[in-house]
Amino acid sequence: MGKERDGTGPERPTTSLSPSAEFPPLSAQDVEALRRLGEHWRAGEPVRALPVDPELRPSGPGAAHARGPNEEFRPDQPGELTTTPAAEQPDSLLGRLAVRVRRVLLGPPLSSTSMLRERMRKLIALPILSSDLLSSVAYGPEALLTILVLAGSAALGLSLPIAGALVVLMVAVGASYRQTVRAYPHGAGSYLVASDSIGPRAGLTAAAGLILDYVLTVSVSVAAGIAAITSALPALSPLAVPLSLLVIAALLTGNLRGIRVAGNIFAAPTYLFLIAIGGMTLVGLAQAGARGFAVVPAPPVPASEAVSVLLIARAFASGATSMTGIEAVSNAVPALRPTEWRNARTVLTWMVSILVLLFSGLMFLIYLNGLVPRANETLLSQLAHRTFPHGPWYAIVQAATALVLLLAANTAYNDLPRLLYFMARDAYVPRRFLHLGDRLALSNGLVALSVAAAVILTAFGGRTQSLIPLFAVGVFLAFTLSQVGMVNHWRRHRESGWRRRAGINAFGAALSSIVLVTAAITKFTSGAWVVVVAVPVLVLLCLRVRRHYDRVRQAVSLRPAPAPTQLPSEGGRERNMAQEFLPQRVRHLLVVPVARFDQTTLRALAYVVSLGQPSLAVHVSPEDQEADRLRDEWTAWGDHIRLETVVSPHREILEPLAQYIAQLRERSPDITLTVVIPEVVAEHPWQRILHSRIEHRLRKALRRLPGVVITSMPIHLSEVHSPAR
Amino acid sequence: MGKERDGTGPERPTTSLSPSAEFPPLSAQDVEALRRLGEHWRAGEPVRALPVDPELRPSGPGAAHARGPNEEFRPDQPGELTTTPAAEQPDSLLGRLAVRVRRVLLGPPLSSTSMLRERMRKLIALPILSSDLLSSVAYGPEALLTILVLAGSAALGLSLPIAGALVVLMVAVGASYRQTVRAYPHGAGSYLVASDSIGPRAGLTAAAGLILDYVLTVSVSVAAGIAAITSALPALSPLAVPLSLLVIAALLTGNLRGIRVAGNIFAAPTYLFLIAIGGMTLVGLAQAGARGFAVVPAPPVPASEAVSVLLIARAFASGATSMTGIEAVSNAVPALRPTEWRNARTVLTWMVSILVLLFSGLMFLIYLNGLVPRANETLLSQLAHRTFPHGPWYAIVQAATALVLLLAANTAYNDLPRLLYFMARDAYVPRRFLHLGDRLALSNGLVALSVAAAVILTAFGGRTQSLIPLFAVGVFLAFTLSQVGMVNHWRRHRESGWRRRAGINAFGAALSSIVLVTAAITKFTSGAWVVVVAVPVLVLLCLRVRRHYDRVRQAVSLRPAPAPTQLPSEGGRERNMAQEFLPQRVRHLLVVPVARFDQTTLRALAYVVSLGQPSLAVHVSPEDQEADRLRDEWTAWGDHIRLETVVSPHREILEPLAQYIAQLRERSPDITLTVVIPEVVAEHPWQRILHSRIEHRLRKALRRLPGVVITSMPIHLSEVHSPAR
Repeated sequence: MGKERDGTGPERPTTSLSPSAEFPPLSAQDVEALRRLGEHWRAGEPVRALPVDPELRPSGPGAAHARGPNEEFRPDQPGELTTTPAAEQPDSLLGRLAVRVRRVLLGPPLSSTSMLRERMRKLIALPILSSDLLSSVAYGPEALLTILVLAGSAALGLSLPIAGALVVLMVAVGASYRQTVRAYPHGAGSYLVASDSIGPRAGLTAAAGLILDYVLTVSVSVAAGIAAITSALPALSPLAVPLSLLVIAALLTGNLRGIRVAGNIFAAPTYLFLIAIGGMTLVGLAQAGARGFAVVPAPPVPASEAVSVLLIARAFASGATSMTGIEAVSNAVPALRPTEWRNARTVLTWMVSILVLLFSGLMFLIYLNGLVPRANETLLSQLAHRTFPHGPWYAIVQAATALVLLLAANTAYNDLPRLLYFMARDAYVPRRFLHLGDRLALSNGLVALSVAAAVILTAFGGRTQSLIPLFAVGVFLAFTLSQVGMVNHWRRHRESGWRRRAGINAFGAALSSIVLVTAAITKFTSGAWVVVVAVPVLVLLCLRVRRHYDRVRQAVSLRPAPAPTQLPSEGGRERNMAQEFLPQRVRHLLVVPVARFDQTTLRALAYVVSLGQPSLAVHVSPEDQEADRLRDEWTAWGDHIRLETVVSPHREILEPLAQYIAQLRERSPDITLTVVIPEVVAEHPWQRILHSRIEHRLRKALRRLPGVVITSMPIHLSEVHSPAR
Repeated sequence: MGKERDGTGPERPTTSLSPSAEFPPLSAQDVEALRRLGEHWRAGEPVRALPVDPELRPSGPGAAHARGPNEEFRPDQPGELTTTPAAEQPDSLLGRLAVRVRRVLLGPPLSSTSMLRERMRKLIALPILSSDLLSSVAYGPEALLTILVLAGSAALGLSLPIAGALVVLMVAVGASYRQTVRAYPHGAGSYLVASDSIGPRAGLTAAAGLILDYVLTVSVSVAAGIAAITSALPALSPLAVPLSLLVIAALLTGNLRGIRVAGNIFAAPTYLFLIAIGGMTLVGLAQAGARGFAVVPAPPVPASEAVSVLLIARAFASGATSMTGIEAVSNAVPALRPTEWRNARTVLTWMVSILVLLFSGLMFLIYLNGLVPRANETLLSQLAHRTFPHGPWYAIVQAATALVLLLAANTAYNDLPRLLYFMARDAYVPRRFLHLGDRLALSNGLVALSVAAAVILTAFGGRTQSLIPLFAVGVFLAFTLSQVGMVNHWRRHRESGWRRRAGINAFGAALSSIVLVTAAITKFTSGAWVVVVAVPVLVLLCLRVRRHYDRVRQAVSLRPAPAPTQLPSEGGRERNMAQEFLPQRVRHLLVVPVARFDQTTLRALAYVVSLGQPSLAVHVSPEDQEADRLRDEWTAWGDHIRLETVVSPHREILEPLAQYIAQLRERSPDITLTVVIPEVVAEHPWQRILHSRIEHRLRKALRRLPGVVITSMPIHLSEVHSPAR
C-alpha cells in the first residue's frame, strides 16, 4: 500500500486548503508526456481562425447586438477573462430566486483571493475549536463519579487519584499534539499523521473513528441541548425533533457563512461558559479556603460492586470521554493565521490549560463538598447551588452550560469537513469534498455532516442517550494511532532530542490505548460494538472509493500503464496513444438516425455533411412499405448521403438502432463513431410526455458503447414564431 | 377550427390501424420543398466514402472479428437490412430478464406483416365487443323497476311501455349505427363521426365522454365482480382491492397478448352468459305459457312518490345505462376481417337483436311473475329461483352473470386504446398511443386505461358504487353527437335515400338526447356533475396538446410559415432556410471546455481538431494562479488550439461557462456552436456520486441555449485494463 506515494499517485500538496485543490497540477513526467504528444500533433489552419472573438471585445464583429463584455466578463490579460457576479446568475427565474435566498442567508460570495483573510484569530479559534472539549467538564466529573459510586461512598476517595490520572492524560495528549502540530504544520490530524507515519490503512482507521465520533457528537449534543430546553418548557416536548433539526440547520447556515462569521456567532457562548465555570470554581475555592479546606463527608451510598481494577478503569475511561476537541485543533492548523503552527500550538496550550484547571478545580470542589451523583440533578447544578445559594449566578451557570453543550456540535462542523477535505485530496472520499463554496467554506462536508446527524437524530426520535456509549472509542482510536504514528515519525527522522519527543508521544499513546481498550471492552455490549463494526466497514468503503478513482486516474492518465505482457517500448506506447490523441490519426464516421424527413433531420444531415467527414444515415422502419416510402422521399431529395434502412418487423426501434451502431463500431474499432441525434426541446416539463423520449433513451443506450461519441442537436420550440391565427 | 383539414394538418389516413402511423408520409408539397432544397445541396466526396460497410456484409474488412450479419441483421435488399429477434435483446442482464418475463406473459412478438391475421372473426368479435352491452340486461331491468316502484306497486304496470320505449331506443341506436358503419367504413366511432361531420370540438366532446365512461366501466365492473366474490367468500373481503388490481392486471395481460388471444380467453364467459340467460328466458316463457300467461300480482309496495313525467323519464334513463357496447363495435370496424364494414354491420345486428330479445324477454317474465326489486336479492336471482327451483341451473345463471359483469370491463379494453389511437393520429393525445406493441396491440392505450382504472379503484378503496351515477351521461353524449353528425353527413352528401337515412339518425339522436338530458339533470347532484365538469376539461387538455404538436410540426416543417410582415418571396424563404439546411452554408465553431489536462481532454481536442473546423478551448478557473498553471501546461503541450481562460473568483464553474458560450453564440448568431464535453462513464451507479456530474449539469444548461449542439465523448472505465498489482 506504499504505492500512493509514487509518481502516479495523487501528489500530496504542500499548501493548505486551496480553491484549486479540485484542479491538481500535472507532475513533471506528465508535462513531459504532454510535450512529446504535442510534438506529433498536426492541425490545419481553420482550427485557429475563429468566426467570433473569444475575448468578447466590444470592437469585434457583431458588436451592435452584443451585450458587451463588461456586464458578465471583464477582460483580464490576453486570453483571460474574469467573471463578474452577473455571470453567476442562472438564467431561470427559479434559479435566480434560489441565488437571492442564498445571498440573504449566507451573504455575498467571497473571492478566492480573500482566502487568507478568511483565517481565524487565536481568540476566535479558541472558543470555536474548544467548545466540544471544554463542554466535557460539564459531564466528565459526573461520568467518572457515576461509575465510582457503584462501589459505595467509601470509594469516592479514589476520585482524586483518578482525576489526577486524567489530568496526566490530558497533559500527555496535549503535549503530544503540541509536538504533532510542529511536525506536521500543514495539518496535524490523526488521519494525516497516521497515514504518513504508519500507513494509509492506519490513517483511514483513525479517520473512520473520528467521522463516527463527529457525527455522533452533533446528534447527541443537539438532542441533549434541546432536551434541556424541553425539560424546562415541557410544552415544547412534542416539537423536540423539529427543533433539533432547526438547530442543525442553524449550525449549518452559520458555518456555511464562512469561518469568520461562524466565529463571531459561536464564540460568545463559549466565553460565557468559561467565565461562569471559572468564576464558580474560584468562588468555591475561596469559600473552601475560608473554612480551611475541610472535607464535607459524602452521604452514605450502599455499594453494589466491589472496588476492582476494572471499575477504576471504567471510571477512568468514562471521565475521558469527549476529548475530540484536541483533534479539532490539529486538523484546523491551516485555518489559523500565519504562522499557522505557532498559533495552533498557542491555542492548544490555552485549551489544555483551561481544561486542566477547570477539570481539576471542579473535581476538587466536588470532593470537598462531598457531592455524589443524583438522578434528578447534575453534579454541576448541585455545585452551583452550593456555591451560589442566592442571586442570579446559579441560573447563569446553568444557562451557559446548556448553551455550550448545544454548541459542542460546532466543533464537529469545524473539523469534519476539513478531515473530509484531506481525505478527498487522497481520493478516499468523493472529490466534491474538495470544493470551497462561494463563502470559502467546505460546503459539501458541512451539508454531509448535517444530513448524517439529522438522519440519526430523526431515526432515534431525538432520544439519543443510547448513542452515548458509542463515543470515546472512535476518538481514542484516532488519538492512539496518531501518537503511535508520531513515535514512528521521530524514530524515522531522528532529529536532535528525538528520544525525548518519542517518549512523550509513546506515553500519550499508552494512556490513550488504555482508554480505548477499556472503553471498547466495558461498553461493548451497550453500543461500542457498532463502532467496532462500522470502522472497518468505513475503511473498506474508502478503499473502494480510492480504487475507483485510481482506475479513473489510470484511464485518463497521459502516460497509460503498459500492458503487463508488453515491454514498455517508447514508440509502441506512443503509437497506441496516437490513435485517439493525435488529430491526424482520428478517422470519423458520422451517423444520423433518421425517423422521418423534417427540419430536425435536414439540419442534422446538413450538420454532418458540412463537417466533410464520411457520413451515413440510418432509418429503422416498422415495415417494408414504410421503408420504401422513406427511400422514395430520399431519392426525391437527391440522395445526398448514404441511407441504410433497417426493417424491424416487431416495431422495436431503440435496440436495433443501438445494436446496428455497435456492430459498425465492432467492425472497425479504429474509427470514431459520432451519432448525431436531432431532438425537439419542449418549453414546459409537461410537454415531455407528448414526446417519445426515444432520443433520450438512445443517448442512454449509446453511452454504454465504447468509442461512440453522441451529439445532440436540440431544436427549440421557442425559436419558432407561430404565424398569426 | 377548420384549419386541421388543410395541407399542413396531419393527413387523415384512409387506411386503418397501421404500424407506420408513427411515421406519417410527406405530403406532395413537402416532397416538392424537399426536392428544391436538395437541388441546392453541395457536399464533398468524403461524405459518401465510408470507412465501414453499412450493410455489415461478412466479406468486408474486419470480417474476422465481426459477429456476422446473420445473427442480428439479415440483408434484405441493397441498402436494407431486417432485424432478427436477436437485435431486440437489450445488452444488460436486467433488460434481458425483462424481455424473458415478457415473452412468457405475452408470447413471442408478432411481425408487422401479421397485422391482417390479427383480425377478429365475427364469432369472436361478438362476445368481445358485446360483453359490456349484454351484461346490462343483468341490471338494466332492475335499475328501471327500482325507480318505478317508488310510485308503488300500481306503477309497475308502466314497466312494459317503458321497456317498449327502451327497445325502440335500442333498435333506433342500432339502426343508426348500422348506417354509420356503412358511411364510415374505416372507423365509425362517435369521435370520428362527430369530428368529421360537426367539427373537431364536437368530436373531442364525444371522445371525452367516452373516455370517462370506459375508465369508469373498468373500475366499477371489476369492483362489482370482486364484490360478488367477496360476498360469497367473506374471508377474502380485506383483499378486495388487491384482488381487483389483480383482475385489472389479468385483463391488461390478456389484452396485451393481442386481439386473437384475448378473444379466445374472453369469448367463452360471454357465450356461457348468453346460453344461461337465453335458456332461462325460454324456460320461463314456456312455464308462463303453460299457465296461460297469467299475471302473478306483485306484492303491495307503498308509494313514496307520485307517478310523474320526471319519474318515468328517470326510469327510462336508468334502464338505458351502459349501451356503450354499440360504440365499441363502431370503433372496432378496422379490427374485423375484410370486408370490415360488412362484418361489423352483421355483428352489430346480432348484438342488438340479442339485446332486444333478452331484455324484452326478461322484462316480460318479471312482469308476469310480479317480481319487485328487493334489497338483498337481485331481480335476476329472484327470476332464476322462480324458474329453476331445483337443480344446478340457478347456480349456473348466477355464476355466468358474475363472470360477465367482471368481463364487461373487457369491452373498454378493446375500444379505448383504439379511440386514443384515432385521437393520437389527429394529435389530440400523446403520439405514443399510435404505437403498436410487439404483439400488435395498442399497448400504451391498454396500460393507460389500466393505470387510470386502478387509481380510481384504489382511491375509492374498492367501493365504487358512488361512481355509478356517472355512467350514461358520457356515453349518451357521444351517441347524441354521433347521430347529429350523421344527420349532417346525409344532408351534406345527399345520396339517394338520404332523407330516410337522415330521419333514422335524427330519431336516434332525439331519443339519445332525451336520455342524456334526463340522466344529466336527475343524477346531477349524485355525481353526474363530475362528468359535466370533466368533459370540458378533457376537451381543453386535448386542444392544448394539439396546439403543442402544431407548434412542433411548424417548427420542424420543411415549408416554414412566412413571417406575418414579410412577403413570401420564394428566394427569401430559401435563403432563410439555407443557413441551417445546406451544408455549404453551415459555419462551425467547436468549443471544448477544459478542466485539466488528461486523456479525456486530449481526446476531445484531437476530436475537434480532426474535424478541421475553427476550434476553441475554454477553461474556467477558481483563481489566477491555477489559470496560469494550466496556461503553462498548455504552452508545454504546444498551444495547438486557442485557449481562453475564464477566472471565476467565486469558484462557480457551470454558470460562467454556460454564459460564456451563450455570449459567443449571441455575437455570431449565424454560427453553429458545438460544445464537446468529455466525460468518464462509471460502471456502477454507486460510482456516480464520486463524480461531480458537472458534465451532466452542463449538458442540461446548454440545452436551454438555441443553436448550440452538444457532443458527449464518453470514456469508459471498462475499456481500461488495470496493470497487475
